[in-house]
Amino acid sequence: MDGAPPPTSPTGLSAYVAVSQLLGLTLLATTGAWLGRYRGGVAWHSPLQFNAHPLCMVLGMVFLQGDALLVYRVFRHEAKRSTKTLHALLHGLALVVALVGIIAVFESHRAKGIPDMYSLHSWCGMATFVLYLLQWLLGCGFFLFPGASFSLRGWYKPQHIFFGITLFILSITSCLLGITEMLLFKISDSYSHFVPEGILANTLGVLLVAFGLVVGYVLTREEWKRPPLAEELALSMDFKTLTEGESPGGGSQ
Amino acid sequence: MDGAPPPTSPTGLSAYVAVSQLLGLTLLATTGAWLGRYRGGVAWHSPLQFNAHPLCMVLGMVFLQGDALLVYRVFRHEAKRSTKTLHALLHGLALVVALVGIIAVFESHRAKGIPDMYSLHSWCGMATFVLYLLQWLLGCGFFLFPGASFSLRGWYKPQHIFFGITLFILSITSCLLGITEMLLFKISDSYSHFVPEGILANTLGVLLVAFGLVVGYVLTREEWKRPPLAEELALSMDFKTLTEGESPGGGSQ
Repeated sequence: MDGAPPPTSPTGLSAYVAVSQLLGLTLLATTGAWLGRYRGGVAWHSPLQFNAHPLCMVLGMVFLQGDALLVYRVFRHEAKRSTKTLHALLHGLALVVALVGIIAVFESHRAKGIPDMYSLHSWCGMATFVLYLLQWLLGCGFFLFPGASFSLRGWYKPQHIFFGITLFILSITSCLLGITEMLLFKISDSYSHFVPEGILANTLGVLLVAFGLVVGYVLTREEWKRPPLAEELALSMDFKTLTEGESPGGGSQ
Repeated sequence: MDGAPPPTSPTGLSAYVAVSQLLGLTLLATTGAWLGRYRGGVAWHSPLQFNAHPLCMVLGMVFLQGDALLVYRVFRHEAKRSTKTLHALLHGLALVVALVGIIAVFESHRAKGIPDMYSLHSWCGMATFVLYLLQWLLGCGFFLFPGASFSLRGWYKPQHIFFGITLFILSITSCLLGITEMLLFKISDSYSHFVPEGILANTLGVLLVAFGLVVGYVLTREEWKRPPLAEELALSMDFKTLTEGESPGGGSQ
């Protein structure tokens, strides 16, 4: 392999990934600016505990989840096993961060005597989180640990991809619902006068949509999909032939 | 063709399409029930004019748009030209219905002295409508009227499909934002007590997500895509060969 040219990425992919990361960092900064400038900042054991919720959800359920979805496009020339592990780790980290955000809102509600789980935001958000956890467990079970047959993995893979993108979209939608709720709770009197906080939070919503759009475009562009490496193809064919549909550990993600 | 067996649809497609239509009708009925039972019903030149907005947006931007997206899967054995015309007509109808809904909210705001376009719902909704109109115009220009070359159509087709599904998702997201806004404007004091109106409107939100999920699943399932008819394939090859990339009128949607 010494004389082989270094592997290259398809034209445009790197630019789109760079834009997605720039958008991701901008939306984290915008969330921080909103909470810091207009909502008193973030602290755990204090009346500001609620503010950990939007920050953790944007970081976990949007930025980290989005990046976890992108790893197969970005690390397209690495071994499948490494990329798959990174995919699972990033989703796992997203789940932990999101869990902290969920604990923040429940503890904050309890401290202030506010009921839980009555709003459309809470219904969508909680359903998304629970299904995301389930998707992660199923993904680990099917693709990361040995045991699932080639045919079972082949059947589950398109479902995993469809629900993966769906949960990412639902996460962004839940964030937009949360922004709307928070603005109508906190600045209902001044929101209609185009006050800076309203415009900043609306802009955060637009940035969330833009991040979802760019990540979604990268994921669904046919020619940007990760092609199997030559050795994976050969290995996969060997296993299929030898074991009549059973694979001891290779992936099909 | 007399002796040929009637063309069949892939297993499961009809069931999913039936579920989508059932969900679509249920969400229209739920919107009607919400507006009729709790919001005084719908009327044009009256204080109830606002209520035409949610009804028209759910009908136009969700149900009709969703059905327009499904026609290539449902009428998979009809001539491409007829299916394409139906696709454009349904999207056109969706646009007209949505325009009525937008006029309703602007007129209602003017009558009540409420400012326009300050909320995240209005930003997302208006951007979605304007881009949907643009997508429709571009779609007609590229695919329905003669003139665009094979190569131009081939370049635009994946963009048209990506942005078509994206705009459908954004339409549903905008509806969810609208539901949240309306509930927090109208029943902010009782929403947290799980009053029936809140639960009904939240359920409408869940139904909208479910409709989007089923339509999205049908659209993205690889083996359910409309295969080109035998005569279309032959015609397309002929045109390509004869005109070196130019087509006088055939489609590539």
